[in-house]
Amino acid sequence: MSASPSAEIISIGTELLLGEIVDGNAAFLASELAEIGMPIYWISQVGDNQDRLVESLRQALNRSRVVITTGGLGPTGDDLTREAIAVIAGEQPSVDRELERVLRERFAAMGRSMPERNLKQAWLIPSAEALPNPLGTAPGWWVTRPDERYVACMPGVPAEMRSMWSEQVRPLVEHLTNASFVAVTLKTFGPGESAIEERLGRLVEAANPSVATYAKRDGVYVRVAASGSSRDEARRRLNPVLEQVRERLGADVFGSEDDSLGSVVGSLLARRHSTVATAESITGGLVCSYLTDIPGSSSHVLGGVVAYNEETKTRFGVPADIIDEHGVVSEETAVALSEIARARFDADFGIGTTGAAGPEGHGGVDPGTAFVAASDAGGQIAKLIRRSGPRETVKHFVALSAIDLLRRFLEDR
Amino acid sequence: MSASPSAEIISIGTELLLGEIVDGNAAFLASELAEIGMPIYWISQVGDNQDRLVESLRQALNRSRVVITTGGLGPTGDDLTREAIAVIAGEQPSVDRELERVLRERFAAMGRSMPERNLKQAWLIPSAEALPNPLGTAPGWWVTRPDERYVACMPGVPAEMRSMWSEQVRPLVEHLTNASFVAVTLKTFGPGESAIEERLGRLVEAANPSVATYAKRDGVYVRVAASGSSRDEARRRLNPVLEQVRERLGADVFGSEDDSLGSVVGSLLARRHSTVATAESITGGLVCSYLTDIPGSSSHVLGGVVAYNEETKTRFGVPADIIDEHGVVSEETAVALSEIARARFDADFGIGTTGAAGPEGHGGVDPGTAFVAASDAGGQIAKLIRRSGPRETVKHFVALSAIDLLRRFLEDR
Repeated sequence: MSASPSAEIISIGTELLLGEIVDGNAAFLASELAEIGMPIYWISQVGDNQDRLVESLRQALNRSRVVITTGGLGPTGDDLTREAIAVIAGEQPSVDRELERVLRERFAAMGRSMPERNLKQAWLIPSAEALPNPLGTAPGWWVTRPDERYVACMPGVPAEMRSMWSEQVRPLVEHLTNASFVAVTLKTFGPGESAIEERLGRLVEAANPSVATYAKRDGVYVRVAASGSSRDEARRRLNPVLEQVRERLGADVFGSEDDSLGSVVGSLLARRHSTVATAESITGGLVCSYLTDIPGSSSHVLGGVVAYNEETKTRFGVPADIIDEHGVVSEETAVALSEIARARFDADFGIGTTGAAGPEGHGGVDPGTAFVAASDAGGQIAKLIRRSGPRETVKHFVALSAIDLLRRFLEDR
Repeated sequence: MSASPSAEIISIGTELLLGEIVDGNAAFLASELAEIGMPIYWISQVGDNQDRLVESLRQALNRSRVVITTGGLGPTGDDLTREAIAVIAGEQPSVDRELERVLRERFAAMGRSMPERNLKQAWLIPSAEALPNPLGTAPGWWVTRPDERYVACMPGVPAEMRSMWSEQVRPLVEHLTNASFVAVTLKTFGPGESAIEERLGRLVEAANPSVATYAKRDGVYVRVAASGSSRDEARRRLNPVLEQVRERLGADVFGSEDDSLGSVVGSLLARRHSTVATAESITGGLVCSYLTDIPGSSSHVLGGVVAYNEETKTRFGVPADIIDEHGVVSEETAVALSEIARARFDADFGIGTTGAAGPEGHGGVDPGTAFVAASDAGGQIAKLIRRSGPRETVKHFVALSAIDLLRRFLEDR
């Protein structure tokens, strides 16, 4: 066994070799391994071909202590990860009765009988333990080699892989490293990545704790990470820097870790037993959909309307003279929509959106221009949003901007 | 030299091993290679370490006729691609005067003098030709090995790489393939991947044309690909198999290539100058949002309502006795919602959704159970949907199911 353990990632699937999907799984796992201080020197993608898969796995086990694979655990003839591992281990797979029971139950719950080919998802070999997969039909494998090397096989479906990694594989891999590591991710919405980096100043240059920014789909994340010989030591290093980061970013921080803008707004509303409704134009229902992504949201989200053209807006009660005077894409129309949302649903808070998603302009504004508004019985707030990019990008950003505006409105209340 | 040429991609940069960036370059190159019919069996990512880089390149040249690298051509001590290639070729790099002149001119044009470390970007070895880089300071290398194997080294900056690939490297690689290649992707929604594969039967076993299935976020895609000595020959091989696939999958095929469910429904509506509106519960606005993701959708999407709780549903006109008799999650409620959508917006077609997104049950049904409905003045259609997984997965699947139901309804009209 090599003195310093290192890990290596193999992503399995011909679709990767055809460029049909980008290997986001490997990037996710690589960042996770970096976080727990496990070095990684190799990542590779290999197709659904047993000989090449066996060759890749052999080579990886030769040079790395932990090999992490994703993909190839499906039920079809193209899914060969189990077969390849069995070849390397020189073991015969057999159906595990408990795994089979779980699998058949899963199909029964979907009202379907299990196709026979799915039975191989219940396979095990003597050197493998099953990693349960509550989100799908493919359990993973944790394989222990005689030379204290390990193979973790996980599904390729990102949600299933991430859950299996966080809950089962990561603790096993962490156990193989000696340092303790703590990290906190703060989430911001509003300023761009370079603006955030500028406000963090020299904090981003230090190594332990390290401070790094990541532009994500729902804002810029700031990750503060520290290591030490114990978790307590790591935490003692982390906390003062975390405080400094929070101070510098102020109200642009909407949450941390698993928070989303929707969950934060949901908590703020639940805390004051308040309700919200939406009246959307440019976002086409996406604000309401994001608000209802949160479990339990039916207690504070009453509903919404999408008024996608001018006639529909006036039909739902936007005064025609507001549209005539200020335009269909205006602060005034956004505010009027937010008030219609409140009135129509008898809600405490209302959100309104109007704008041009593109690729054409609309209502006298350029594509990517929008207004969002939030209101309650005591007042209202509105904001001009500009965002370039394809329609879906614009809609997504405007929808999040509207929810973030309500968040700031609620925090000031 | 192996009989059938194949290519392999090596992406170079420690940032890839830290998961700081996703390897979009490899996916781009892989799809390009698929397009020109150059098989590819391996992709790998390696860090800025000379020994490991040399090892990766040696192995790649051993098993593939063309090795394509990206990254490691910058001016810093971490940029080691040229050094590694020189080791493998057993040649000494020297400064090429012409490359140096171009480089110095480039800096002069930016009003800066060239840092001395940039001089290595003007290196060449005898077996390498320079690939000019009009977008950056790093020229690429096209290296010819004595055994008629080739290495193409390109920069890691995506825009520079893509331009160098399209204009210089792709023609060189195309020249090495003798075959022409055509492929068509059909998109299905409804049945799962194994059901689709079962219906395709032995078609998935053939090699040319090949038929492969891919589970995607919006259904199962079926890719039919063929090669031949000319594009015409490839097409002649492809077409009969493509027809067979279409026949076997029938109405489950919603489109091909860049089609989405939303764009297909949009075209069907536009063709008959019809309009649609939605009344959503479980999907919280997502159906309407997906329908409005399509440019120009304001001509056929009028809007929608989200009635997220029972009181709101009756407020918008779902008869209380329907809810009392059949339950809030029922076929009848879904149909009633679709009719409310039509009535409220004066639309030709209506969509309704109701169900339990989870994690808790709702309205007497288990999480993941929903009904979707579509209607017009002449009738209605409804469907029971079951889907396990987290809330967002359920909402997404139910929303697509509702749009797909309208598609089938429209196609039958």
